[in-house]
Amino acid sequence: MAMRVFSGIQPTGVPQLGNYLGSLQNWVKLQQNSTADDSLLFSIVDLHALTVPRSPQKLRQETLEMAASIVACGVDPSKSLLFRQSAVAAHTQLLWVLGCITPVGWLNRMTQWKSKLQQQGQLVGQTEALNVHAPAAQGLLAGLFTYPVLMAADILLYKATHIPVGDDQVQHLELARDIAEHFNKTYKTRLFPLPAPLLTESKRVMSLRDPQRKMSKSDPNEQRRLTRSAGSRSMRKERPGVANLLAIYAALRETECEQAAAELRDCSNAQLKEAVAEAVVQFVGPVRSEMQRLLANAGDLEKMLAENEEKVNGIARANWKEIATCVGLQ
Amino acid sequence: MAMRVFSGIQPTGVPQLGNYLGSLQNWVKLQQNSTADDSLLFSIVDLHALTVPRSPQKLRQETLEMAASIVACGVDPSKSLLFRQSAVAAHTQLLWVLGCITPVGWLNRMTQWKSKLQQQGQLVGQTEALNVHAPAAQGLLAGLFTYPVLMAADILLYKATHIPVGDDQVQHLELARDIAEHFNKTYKTRLFPLPAPLLTESKRVMSLRDPQRKMSKSDPNEQRRLTRSAGSRSMRKERPGVANLLAIYAALRETECEQAAAELRDCSNAQLKEAVAEAVVQFVGPVRSEMQRLLANAGDLEKMLAENEEKVNGIARANWKEIATCVGLQ
Repeated sequence: MAMRVFSGIQPTGVPQLGNYLGSLQNWVKLQQNSTADDSLLFSIVDLHALTVPRSPQKLRQETLEMAASIVACGVDPSKSLLFRQSAVAAHTQLLWVLGCITPVGWLNRMTQWKSKLQQQGQLVGQTEALNVHAPAAQGLLAGLFTYPVLMAADILLYKATHIPVGDDQVQHLELARDIAEHFNKTYKTRLFPLPAPLLTESKRVMSLRDPQRKMSKSDPNEQRRLTRSAGSRSMRKERPGVANLLAIYAALRETECEQAAAELRDCSNAQLKEAVAEAVVQFVGPVRSEMQRLLANAGDLEKMLAENEEKVNGIARANWKEIATCVGLQ
Repeated sequence: MAMRVFSGIQPTGVPQLGNYLGSLQNWVKLQQNSTADDSLLFSIVDLHALTVPRSPQKLRQETLEMAASIVACGVDPSKSLLFRQSAVAAHTQLLWVLGCITPVGWLNRMTQWKSKLQQQGQLVGQTEALNVHAPAAQGLLAGLFTYPVLMAADILLYKATHIPVGDDQVQHLELARDIAEHFNKTYKTRLFPLPAPLLTESKRVMSLRDPQRKMSKSDPNEQRRLTRSAGSRSMRKERPGVANLLAIYAALRETECEQAAAELRDCSNAQLKEAVAEAVVQFVGPVRSEMQRLLANAGDLEKMLAENEEKVNGIARANWKEIATCVGLQ
């Protein structure tokens, strides 16, 4: 059966290694393995980016850079639909409709929201802050509370059947499924298919500084140059650093971890780091220069996005019309 | 200086007396008093209607009936812009943007949310439920929590300068002002004017059953036929019932309460009720038949709405473009 895949990526500008290995490599593989019946929707989710303050200039620039990077990494906009989330109004229209059937309790249970509350609590020296009415919580943004509903809308708007997910997104996909099921039941319809997780081969890349933490997409400390020096303490004292470097190496070479381990078995720590750094350079070099070429012709890039967005809007508007009719709006 | 007025009304089908005296009479007066420079935007807020479950068929029907009723009451769609909220996607686009600068604490403070929490708490026998994490709160819909942000978006999308408000909407308008101010400060802009409340002459019409409560727009017990019998106990025992009947009479006759009181001074209770019932019939009769005529030509009505919505979308899209650019989305 034909798959309809939706996946989103935050506009973080030039992708860091974690971005590439976490999402973009999957996208390219999905594109390679897709058939003519499948459709692939890849979105730069600039609306989600607004939940974390940054300057408008930076957001605009990083959105364009991310578009260039995605194409440079191998996503072909004539095969996959690449678009900016904010260019498709129906995402927020559906957000509202879904918010009107989503109980507050479902959002309170979201791990990311609870962890934001905890962080906020720690900032003000309050350790029990798992309560939206606690003083510590009052400064958190409403957008942070409701963004899992927007993620559900992102998926359901296209009646997506398959969603590539990392471990930290499993709960969000489950929420999207719960909302889809609840909508179908409430409105006695089968409008939304229940989106299934798409397990991909990609390794989970951990932080180079702390290999027990996932590599952050937004942590400014996670720069490419760290590859050479990072993990050295861990490499001396524990396995995670080594395992992580091997995972990065394997992912960049598109091979298996076991294969990489065998290949690098006789390396010293220094040599291992050298080999990984080399793999990064070999991968990043061509991607970077293609990205620069695309950004030098920003007009063409914008045109490509606009053309894709017109196609995506065609799908989105038709589905929104159906949804709106279903709930009695039109 | 030119005014840009925004006002919304829930799609409750054939308007009840409270609707007319609460909103529609004001709209007609605003239209009569406006100059060529002013613009009046009147919206049937069908998106807000979704926060309370009702059947899609009913919502669709009541939206159309409300449109017919508004026109029948004297709003001229060639002078005022009458439109369905859901036909203008930028309302929800702005909702998201504003939600991303609105602290959760601002929404927790909203009186209507707190009162929903209390109601919910009473249902499950929990009297202290002013907490979004209390078990009683978990079933409340996210849309109910965030709808004041949508109200702010309704207003700010048009850079509205003046908003007609009833007592129960003052807090919502204040929130819209706070959000506008916070947006302007955050993005170092003067994009949003601070909308001012528009005080109108219209009397506040209290419930006919309980003159201390505001007449509900959705309470199915508040039917027109009650006019004749309502308030009788109060009239025997206290003043509010009489005062309320006089207010209804005065509003329908477009006169002052004092004038109405003088006019009906020598009436018995029965005669007073009779006079009010007569005023209702005289007002409702012509409106009702004009409404029926409009609904019999539903195609024309839809066409009128679609034409207005195209104009409104023109304004909304231009403003959204400016807002999106301001926050770095485009």
